[in-house]
Amino acid sequence: MRRTHTTDLTHAVPGETVRLQGWVHRRRELAALTFLVVRDRTGLAQVVVREDDPAWGAVPPEETPVEVVGTATTSARAPGGVEVTAASVTALGEPAATPVVELWRPTLDAALPTLLDHAATTWRHPRQRARWEVAAASLHGFRATLDASGFTEVHSPKLVESATESGASVFEVDYFGRPAFLAQSPQLYKQVLVGVFERVYEVGPVFRAEPHDTVRHLAQYVSLDVELGFVESHREVVACLRDVVAGMVAAVHERAAAAVERLEVDVPVVPEEVPVLHFRDALRLVGAPDDEPDLAPAHERALGAWARETHGSDFLVVEGYPTASRAFYSHPDPEDPRWSRSFDLLFRGVELVSGAQRLHRHADYVRVLAERGYPAEPFASYVEAFRHGIPPHGGFAIGLERWVSRLVGAANVREVTLFPRDLHRLAP
Amino acid sequence: MRRTHTTDLTHAVPGETVRLQGWVHRRRELAALTFLVVRDRTGLAQVVVREDDPAWGAVPPEETPVEVVGTATTSARAPGGVEVTAASVTALGEPAATPVVELWRPTLDAALPTLLDHAATTWRHPRQRARWEVAAASLHGFRATLDASGFTEVHSPKLVESATESGASVFEVDYFGRPAFLAQSPQLYKQVLVGVFERVYEVGPVFRAEPHDTVRHLAQYVSLDVELGFVESHREVVACLRDVVAGMVAAVHERAAAAVERLEVDVPVVPEEVPVLHFRDALRLVGAPDDEPDLAPAHERALGAWARETHGSDFLVVEGYPTASRAFYSHPDPEDPRWSRSFDLLFRGVELVSGAQRLHRHADYVRVLAERGYPAEPFASYVEAFRHGIPPHGGFAIGLERWVSRLVGAANVREVTLFPRDLHRLAP
Repeated sequence: MRRTHTTDLTHAVPGETVRLQGWVHRRRELAALTFLVVRDRTGLAQVVVREDDPAWGAVPPEETPVEVVGTATTSARAPGGVEVTAASVTALGEPAATPVVELWRPTLDAALPTLLDHAATTWRHPRQRARWEVAAASLHGFRATLDASGFTEVHSPKLVESATESGASVFEVDYFGRPAFLAQSPQLYKQVLVGVFERVYEVGPVFRAEPHDTVRHLAQYVSLDVELGFVESHREVVACLRDVVAGMVAAVHERAAAAVERLEVDVPVVPEEVPVLHFRDALRLVGAPDDEPDLAPAHERALGAWARETHGSDFLVVEGYPTASRAFYSHPDPEDPRWSRSFDLLFRGVELVSGAQRLHRHADYVRVLAERGYPAEPFASYVEAFRHGIPPHGGFAIGLERWVSRLVGAANVREVTLFPRDLHRLAP
Repeated sequence: MRRTHTTDLTHAVPGETVRLQGWVHRRRELAALTFLVVRDRTGLAQVVVREDDPAWGAVPPEETPVEVVGTATTSARAPGGVEVTAASVTALGEPAATPVVELWRPTLDAALPTLLDHAATTWRHPRQRARWEVAAASLHGFRATLDASGFTEVHSPKLVESATESGASVFEVDYFGRPAFLAQSPQLYKQVLVGVFERVYEVGPVFRAEPHDTVRHLAQYVSLDVELGFVESHREVVACLRDVVAGMVAAVHERAAAAVERLEVDVPVVPEEVPVLHFRDALRLVGAPDDEPDLAPAHERALGAWARETHGSDFLVVEGYPTASRAFYSHPDPEDPRWSRSFDLLFRGVELVSGAQRLHRHADYVRVLAERGYPAEPFASYVEAFRHGIPPHGGFAIGLERWVSRLVGAANVREVTLFPRDLHRLAP
């Protein structure tokens, strides 16, 4: 007999025999009646067991995987209007241990460490699982947008010879007896692969040995990296980012509609043209001194409010951050090299994505590294790559967990990470 | 003016002004004529520069990124029947250094170490790039098949507390002052996530500290992992694998047709039902002793020939490998536990994929680890996960680089890896 998913039970013909598979989500044993709620990947179904039914007294504890065979029966109190009666219930494994939190309650009422320590079971809660469904849909939208725009998916090494992003926060690996490092980003690789494919993206883990214990830092996160060549300036990179975010939002609507509804996500509308503000003007707008090197979180919040009020937009691009305060590979503004062709995308007043046009001339790399007083050796292979004809290019990186946490309103990025890694956490 | 891609030049109206962007693929300076071949991500275009043209004497060296503006002109000798004349050529960067190999030659005539040392440029060769185009298309087909079958994409930690696959070949990481390891596979994570999503897949790096210097081992490779719950046996896992491989093959046809043609790939046909042979019968068929624990490469080749002759199939599933010779989490055959519900997929006589139904009962894990004399502690969290109701499940993993190398006929897996990592190689 074919399996019926719980959400398809509503289409069953009353009287029809159906076969469900899933977990005992809730077992409620009354004197003459046992209510069983079965959870599968699509949703929940109600099974009513009465004294003469084969399942009477045989419903295993919550979280046990089961198969239920019974009769589809119209019922006003059942989700979807159909419940299962006269059922037999077969356990598909041992009786499950009692979970540390009651997964059948509408909300997961537990402290974050408890949730994380028991992630393998707490992710089963429908509200928790919905968060990852938003993540998975976002990944789909990211790729679909880029696949449709001539991008090539790439995979770069995670074990590298030297740290090029920022020396302090890097994990060291024993690589066959010599030191190696975990890649903090695919930055160099995506840049040189522009020389091969013109437009590339990578979805993969990046590693930061962050000694900070904050709500937004992880030791490993999923980075959605994009790089495209033959650009005139960072503005084409901004346009690409706009389309990518719009594609992610569209995929969340299309592929995670139930999750959006369950979590009451206020999914943003991505305007055709995201408003752009120069860093200089952004400082003035928030009343900050002209020589601030960066925007403070309070500034970003004020700018977010301004974008909403003035442009009706949840998104705002701030461009032209001071060259000195951005990564060495950022391209200066040719008209005034104190400012860079870099940008941040703010989402509801919080930084979501950083990007830029990059330097593409070998001589510029040599010059900027000398100016910044960086040691030559760790950057040698990085710099060498630019001898071989890399066109003007730029790109950006979206942190998956940051995006999802902002979207679903999670206070801590760990709440949307399947098995987070941080200063204190290496398991599960 | 809009950019014209080289492959679209064939549709240009003769006399129309066009703008190309790409690299100087080939520069041939004759007395009264310079032939310039421009390469972009779509293909090649011919530009003919004569003495009075703006570009005369101004074509930069090979591999320099350029913009070409000129007149589309019908020409029988040009690819696609159209060349560009009366052109101006603007370098989009510094003159490129001379590549270590001549990328304009039809084949890449260099030893493997040279190719790998200069990967950032050698991947630009159209034949080399075509190999990765097959890889990228395969990834697309993998995900498309699973997305259409109710699977959820997941991302698991690459930094783990203990090595559970095989203790010897693991990289150690300094994790904030304590030891951690790079994950050899997402095995445990995909198994426990079956408890959440029922059906999951992950595309990501896995790490093997392989001390062997062979043509098929890498220290990092891209693993395409799949796991699905509520199976009756490994046969449903085999059916899923068949669909996944068929989806990958279809995507290679659809999305990498030019690469297939360029490399003359003999793309296999995946039969609706892949023939299945029990390990016991496979041994008999090749005339090996009954008590062999595994198939030797020569056996696999003989079986591949048999599958082709008897079933007209490039693929063969061998199932029922001896339980003792497979991973501890393999499910024994309930009818005869000497054999396991594991399988290998052979492609043209070489092992391509391993998979199995897994153990799903906590008691079975406790028993098998004791029987094998494994230490309890490293497996404690693995085993603990099975207290919480994991349904019968199984899965498989496809090594991307192995798949592509078999498909395109590369002798060494490094030839199809963008930036390989091995015993001796940590750069570029």
